[in-house]
Amino acid sequence: MDKQRYCLTITYDGTNYQGWQSQPNGKSIQQNIESVLFTLFQKNICLFGSGRTDSGVHALDQKAHFDLDKKVNIDKLLHSLNALLPKDIRVLKVELVDQDFHARFSCKRKIYQYHIHRKQVIDPFNKNYRLFFPYPLNLEKMKQACSYLLGTHNFSSFANKQDKGSAKNNPVKTLHRIDFIEKDYGLLVEYEGDGFLYKMVRNITGTLLEVGQEKLEPFEVQKILEAKDRKKACFAADGKGLFLAKTFY
Amino acid sequence: MDKQRYCLTITYDGTNYQGWQSQPNGKSIQQNIESVLFTLFQKNICLFGSGRTDSGVHALDQKAHFDLDKKVNIDKLLHSLNALLPKDIRVLKVELVDQDFHARFSCKRKIYQYHIHRKQVIDPFNKNYRLFFPYPLNLEKMKQACSYLLGTHNFSSFANKQDKGSAKNNPVKTLHRIDFIEKDYGLLVEYEGDGFLYKMVRNITGTLLEVGQEKLEPFEVQKILEAKDRKKACFAADGKGLFLAKTFY
Repeated sequence: MDKQRYCLTITYDGTNYQGWQSQPNGKSIQQNIESVLFTLFQKNICLFGSGRTDSGVHALDQKAHFDLDKKVNIDKLLHSLNALLPKDIRVLKVELVDQDFHARFSCKRKIYQYHIHRKQVIDPFNKNYRLFFPYPLNLEKMKQACSYLLGTHNFSSFANKQDKGSAKNNPVKTLHRIDFIEKDYGLLVEYEGDGFLYKMVRNITGTLLEVGQEKLEPFEVQKILEAKDRKKACFAADGKGLFLAKTFY
Repeated sequence: MDKQRYCLTITYDGTNYQGWQSQPNGKSIQQNIESVLFTLFQKNICLFGSGRTDSGVHALDQKAHFDLDKKVNIDKLLHSLNALLPKDIRVLKVELVDQDFHARFSCKRKIYQYHIHRKQVIDPFNKNYRLFFPYPLNLEKMKQACSYLLGTHNFSSFANKQDKGSAKNNPVKTLHRIDFIEKDYGLLVEYEGDGFLYKMVRNITGTLLEVGQEKLEPFEVQKILEAKDRKKACFAADGKGLFLAKTFY
């Protein structure tokens, strides 16, 4: 029988993981799911995610595909996966997809959300899901800085080097939208783009926070972008505030 | 100098604690705060809470008082407490209160909230904050059952025995309100009363869930109440779904 391709929609609390991608040391989301697939099918099954998320980063809508040499009942598979996975990783949906579907290469757009807690006291229920940042921020300047980032650019200045062996990524990406949404706890920054480089959202967020604190002027963000040099941008904002919120195919 | 009484407003994620009250084995919220007070003032300071919460139960508005033989700067004290406490316990407010204020005996009313997750897949971000209960519930019957519980009653059937040494509690309490609030994730049950016995909210919630599943008829709840016998009521619903949401003085 021909192979069958399945796509999982996955949500996870990344707090206790080294990230999406399998690592020599430390637990990853991918390893956990692959290990459950091994238990269910008694063979090594390779899982391809829409993209990696770093240590501590969360996902509401991660997609990943894998192949099987048989057709399975997708409702039963959903149930079995969730029965065997740790409770901080949940499969929301299992779908049979076309052979030419690819979780990474078929992905057209993604939304990332970054949560910034701006109150003096951190909320104990969200301590793993927000950056604690109770300092003044000049939102107008942050918005100005964004105007240089929107559109199609070479984002090398905001991309960390990937590990050896990682697939090389074209550094030219299109950022469609950066929205600042005021919340009772502080600020939600939403990024929508056709693709994101390694640590790009965290590096941009860190740089925008420097602008918000007036340590950097908005126009300097354009200079950073044009330099195509990671050393020019600022620190990466902590992974725990970041969610892969939505993937579009 | 006369002693000064201070009241703390505290929020905590109860997941990693044995509950509010100091225990011979295991960590308690009270012990953690008392230990920080010892560090700050170099003496044993007794903390009196508005009431105990069980293992795994959370609080948004726990109040607790203690005495000092000096006046301190309350802003600095708030800052020092939060600097030394673990991040899952946060002090929201420190107030200087009258000598006759008592966190337990001056408390006039409390609101507890119980969160029931009714979807098939649990949300990984709320796994410690909701009861996972993806079963059909007859809400009308649950509401009927509540009609027997509202008002002033001897709630012994819904009270677990406290440990030896705990202060005896009058079993007659007034339940002002039980509301069922439908949420995207399921059901929030809100209880408002003048006081609650040990495990009373969890025992009532467990019993209401039996009624919702039609394992028990609403009128039987009245019989359970009248029996004044803990053995007649149902299992206690899991502590993790429960929040002490508001205390009134």
